[in-house]
Amino acid sequence: MKPIFKKALIIGVGLIGGSLALSARAKGVVREIVGLGRSQRSLQRALELGVIDAVAKDLKEGLQGTDLVVLAMPVGKFEEWALALSQHTLEGVTVTDVGSVKGNLVIKLEEILKGKAVFVGGHPIAGKEKSGVEASQATLFEGALCILTPTPQTPPESLKRVQSLWEGVGSKVSIVDPFLHDKLLALVSHLPHMVAYALVNAVLDADVGGHDPIFYSGGGFRDFSRIAASSEEMWADICLQNRDALVDMLNLYQEKLSELKEKIINGNREALCQTFHRAKEMRGKIA
Amino acid sequence: MKPIFKKALIIGVGLIGGSLALSARAKGVVREIVGLGRSQRSLQRALELGVIDAVAKDLKEGLQGTDLVVLAMPVGKFEEWALALSQHTLEGVTVTDVGSVKGNLVIKLEEILKGKAVFVGGHPIAGKEKSGVEASQATLFEGALCILTPTPQTPPESLKRVQSLWEGVGSKVSIVDPFLHDKLLALVSHLPHMVAYALVNAVLDADVGGHDPIFYSGGGFRDFSRIAASSEEMWADICLQNRDALVDMLNLYQEKLSELKEKIINGNREALCQTFHRAKEMRGKIA
Repeated sequence: MKPIFKKALIIGVGLIGGSLALSARAKGVVREIVGLGRSQRSLQRALELGVIDAVAKDLKEGLQGTDLVVLAMPVGKFEEWALALSQHTLEGVTVTDVGSVKGNLVIKLEEILKGKAVFVGGHPIAGKEKSGVEASQATLFEGALCILTPTPQTPPESLKRVQSLWEGVGSKVSIVDPFLHDKLLALVSHLPHMVAYALVNAVLDADVGGHDPIFYSGGGFRDFSRIAASSEEMWADICLQNRDALVDMLNLYQEKLSELKEKIINGNREALCQTFHRAKEMRGKIA
Repeated sequence: MKPIFKKALIIGVGLIGGSLALSARAKGVVREIVGLGRSQRSLQRALELGVIDAVAKDLKEGLQGTDLVVLAMPVGKFEEWALALSQHTLEGVTVTDVGSVKGNLVIKLEEILKGKAVFVGGHPIAGKEKSGVEASQATLFEGALCILTPTPQTPPESLKRVQSLWEGVGSKVSIVDPFLHDKLLALVSHLPHMVAYALVNAVLDADVGGHDPIFYSGGGFRDFSRIAASSEEMWADICLQNRDALVDMLNLYQEKLSELKEKIINGNREALCQTFHRAKEMRGKIA
């Protein structure tokens, strides 16, 4: 494939940044990839593993000849890095990200980089329980969804290039408004994580006569606890960055749970069957 | 293996009853297996598939020469069947069950059968998304946990025989008080199912600008929706039969969820990290 970008600077070479580096080079969509980040150990490891071509000693060095910057550190650090980027010459540079939160953050980053570089928000829906560069895979994005969140300010040709990058590594691209993205993700990703965290904490705190509840758990609880095993720092950032949408969805969820509890308390078998049947039908559609 | 029971009557030949029949004969722990239940179609299917040796036309016929009766229909029907059983001569018969609820139900069944047959409560922790006799497997209980719930009335030799039956089909047996069983299962099985049902219903009812949220969902939500796909009738029965323990656990869960929401609303990053870290540590122990 003809390279879409000459040289990419990936800031934060963890699971997602590392997998993008591996797959972008494997598919030939980016010619050269340089890494930068706060952990030198992790960057050296990325270099040893052949995930990146070089480690930049600072932003100035990293930006030399670069036409793509990817923000792949935790979302809580995006603003700080965008401010640092804005101190440099960024002519012809496209800045994108892989963060799980868009909305206001996209508007803010766009504002910070205004007149200097184009920003195109991106969110590949891919991940694993494990984090860190060691978990990187060249195939992580194959067949996965990547949401891009342009605004009325986004030049169509920049959006097109970032779209080609993700399609080049095998993703299906979907274009969604940044605020709607946050609602959707709060619902199908952030809320399920909160629900799982609360469940694991309930299991830890329940009084069951000294027995170890885990010993008695079947597949259901294990599936839940799997999603509660992700990086706590990443999830704290997501909660705070997507607070409004997440709290809305938590409110909706609490309503549904209270309704269900009422049906159990009232012994309303028919209403319970209807509620469960509805959920089962939906599962049928996605299985 | 020397047979532990000569002839078993399994009432309700679905996934669990059918799998017990297949595995008990494969391992030689029961010599002959007869099926009985409300659906003649399902019993004929069990016979065609070689899951059972014969279909009994009624309880009287089914009880001839039988030394083991297994209640394997939905828990909501146990009492009715125990009352029907109590109308017959049951000398030397052990009655057991495979229901997910114990506690009061065990006391009630024991009372109904008092002076006629011994009742030993049992609960194999095994199941699949699919139900029905077609989904039966001779290996379903291998390595799985089976909880037996004797009471002070249970003769030790009867408990021993039922334990040998389950160990004979490959299960690990754990002996637990019937009421504590209900608390444990409410926590690690029934609560997770309610949590998943409420989540699927929230996703169905959320307002996300006409987008289909399922399209944007990753592995996390899919894991949840899998456990919401079980038989609605079975789950309605479980909720009603284990109402007290389940409502207690739902209350505890609602507390944990409210605490988590407060931390998000207050932007308390450190507290969020601690909550998430605690869940992750626990996951580490069971992974």
